[in-house]
Amino acid sequence: MQAVGIIAEYNPFHNGHAYQIRQAKQQTGADIVVVAMSGNWVQRGEPALLDKWQRAQTAIAGGADLVVELPMASAMQPAHLFAQGGVAILTALRCQWLAFGTEHPGMDYQRLMAHLPTDPTTFKRFDQTYASLFQGYLREQTGITLNTGNDILGFFYALANRLMGRSLQLVPLARKGSNHNDSTIVAGERFASATAIRQAILAGDWAQVVPVVPSTTLATLRQGPLLDWEQLWPQLRYLLMTSAPTDLAKMYQITEGIEYRLKRSAVASATFATFMRTVKTKRYTYTRLQRQAGYLYNQVHPAEMLQRPQYLRVLGYSTGGQRYLHTIKKQVSLPLVSRANRDWQTGVGALDTRAGQLRTLLTGIPQDDGRIPVKPSDSE
Amino acid sequence: MQAVGIIAEYNPFHNGHAYQIRQAKQQTGADIVVVAMSGNWVQRGEPALLDKWQRAQTAIAGGADLVVELPMASAMQPAHLFAQGGVAILTALRCQWLAFGTEHPGMDYQRLMAHLPTDPTTFKRFDQTYASLFQGYLREQTGITLNTGNDILGFFYALANRLMGRSLQLVPLARKGSNHNDSTIVAGERFASATAIRQAILAGDWAQVVPVVPSTTLATLRQGPLLDWEQLWPQLRYLLMTSAPTDLAKMYQITEGIEYRLKRSAVASATFATFMRTVKTKRYTYTRLQRQAGYLYNQVHPAEMLQRPQYLRVLGYSTGGQRYLHTIKKQVSLPLVSRANRDWQTGVGALDTRAGQLRTLLTGIPQDDGRIPVKPSDSE
Repeated sequence: MQAVGIIAEYNPFHNGHAYQIRQAKQQTGADIVVVAMSGNWVQRGEPALLDKWQRAQTAIAGGADLVVELPMASAMQPAHLFAQGGVAILTALRCQWLAFGTEHPGMDYQRLMAHLPTDPTTFKRFDQTYASLFQGYLREQTGITLNTGNDILGFFYALANRLMGRSLQLVPLARKGSNHNDSTIVAGERFASATAIRQAILAGDWAQVVPVVPSTTLATLRQGPLLDWEQLWPQLRYLLMTSAPTDLAKMYQITEGIEYRLKRSAVASATFATFMRTVKTKRYTYTRLQRQAGYLYNQVHPAEMLQRPQYLRVLGYSTGGQRYLHTIKKQVSLPLVSRANRDWQTGVGALDTRAGQLRTLLTGIPQDDGRIPVKPSDSE
Repeated sequence: MQAVGIIAEYNPFHNGHAYQIRQAKQQTGADIVVVAMSGNWVQRGEPALLDKWQRAQTAIAGGADLVVELPMASAMQPAHLFAQGGVAILTALRCQWLAFGTEHPGMDYQRLMAHLPTDPTTFKRFDQTYASLFQGYLREQTGITLNTGNDILGFFYALANRLMGRSLQLVPLARKGSNHNDSTIVAGERFASATAIRQAILAGDWAQVVPVVPSTTLATLRQGPLLDWEQLWPQLRYLLMTSAPTDLAKMYQITEGIEYRLKRSAVASATFATFMRTVKTKRYTYTRLQRQAGYLYNQVHPAEMLQRPQYLRVLGYSTGGQRYLHTIKKQVSLPLVSRANRDWQTGVGALDTRAGQLRTLLTGIPQDDGRIPVKPSDSE
């Protein structure tokens, strides 16, 4: 059996994702689609709307065969680390291909990689963000513009794959419909961006959501519970108000005195939206600040984020996916975790476990204790 | 003008407190009653039911002339440190007497003080609490039994006063009605313990409360907002679940590995009552554990609790109290703080400010920003 891998968040799983799964199988001839999916926190530094089990379920219903968690240490990270984590998981799971959506399937990754900056001070300017400096540099060097988030991710997938010995064959797929960050749903269209869909959901505009997501996603979303930053804000606000600045500064990525700014803003901000507006400066992107908020919310220490994937936490599988897992289980290079035990929960899985327990505090739904991988029949 | 001092919590202010104020004036002939009162956290490690301004208001209405905050670094402490803080405040405010309620006004404090333990290892047994070891030691040495909380407090007032050069004259007053810790309100009685009154209030049994508190207290209680540990538990639970044990162990009084026990219990406990039942062992009293919970809730570092009172935070005064303050203000040995400014809030007053901000998070009522001392007319 041959598997094509996808790195995804499915926040939430929509028609574009289902289309991508079909395309990935068609173009590669793979028997199995393996997904490395963010867990309860996504790359942008937000709690996922639905939890990892609900999202795995919608992915299996939408054609995925095996869903494995991209640990938070990789998932809630800038694009290059997110990509490294995903590629590591898919490589460990013996995938042959890595399929990914892009607006520019013909992008010349080799040329970009031949012009990587070697001088780290390239990115030490105070009036621009890291991402825009990076893109500017590559454009200067190669004439290629990495305009969209997907282009940037695609580039980092290629780079991560090279770093890991090119075990995966890259399969860029032309994206269907909207750009990843388009914030509107076009009437009459079956495809929309996850960003636009989340906004419609949080606004309670279900009529907009119906045409652009599979029925399983719709049913799961309507059942909930759905989580967003505003629900977490009272806890983070309390934490910021009580913590000494020196204690905040010990957390991952809390540097350059931003802890004082965060503390001051917390006292004054009744909502997360206000908080983010108050702390935003030109220096940091919204996404970076939101990830910092996520690191603080989970009280993440640097050592917890500096690890590459160390386990394969299985969230769900189809019959085919289960068979595939059985076939490869003697060859996987990382331990498979289908049931969380105490060693995992207090050891390498401590951060994902903690994030899960915090989600349970708000939703009442257990995340790792006693949970087993979801199967297609579970949603019937 | 001569002032008699009282150290109190007024949680809430009841008829016994009003009686004590009258008694203190009568027995001493003082013109003015000065009260050093716990702020938003009380000695037992609980948030006060009403905030410090509301409680100062009820005290002024009940006959107190000047109410000054006993800083949290002194208030939320075992009896000997609580007593030291109170005596320091009243001494700084030029009081001549210290009046306090006791079940045994004839207690021989001199004899007790002559037999203090000098060997610190006296209190290193693992099957008994510090308090009971201390009482046992004094009983062995002197034949005197310190049975009640008030006896113990009275003894520590005497001790603190001796340490500070005996500037206050002790005035033990026979208590009216129930023992401090009696948990019932006797029908037909005008006096009950604060403990019993709190329980009736939290049970919503107002008919029991009416006869035993002044009308101002009753009105203030009915208006609220009232705070108890259960309302704070979601925040503390979140903090315990996210914090690394090594970070918890940096907080005041978190020693001997109790941080692991607290973390484990937090995950499993939906209520503060369950949490306390789960962590309780013979080793620690309920009160000590509750104070530890309070230190953690406020993320209190050791350095913040090891300071003697450094300011006189004025919460309220009567016309007489205001005149007295005017008379003594050139002679007070600590700075008077009638309006909190930024220096105080970020400096010596940082802990009280933080505790106030956290209370505001839950009640919406500002505690230090822009607040000025309450006066009798404020309640009309």
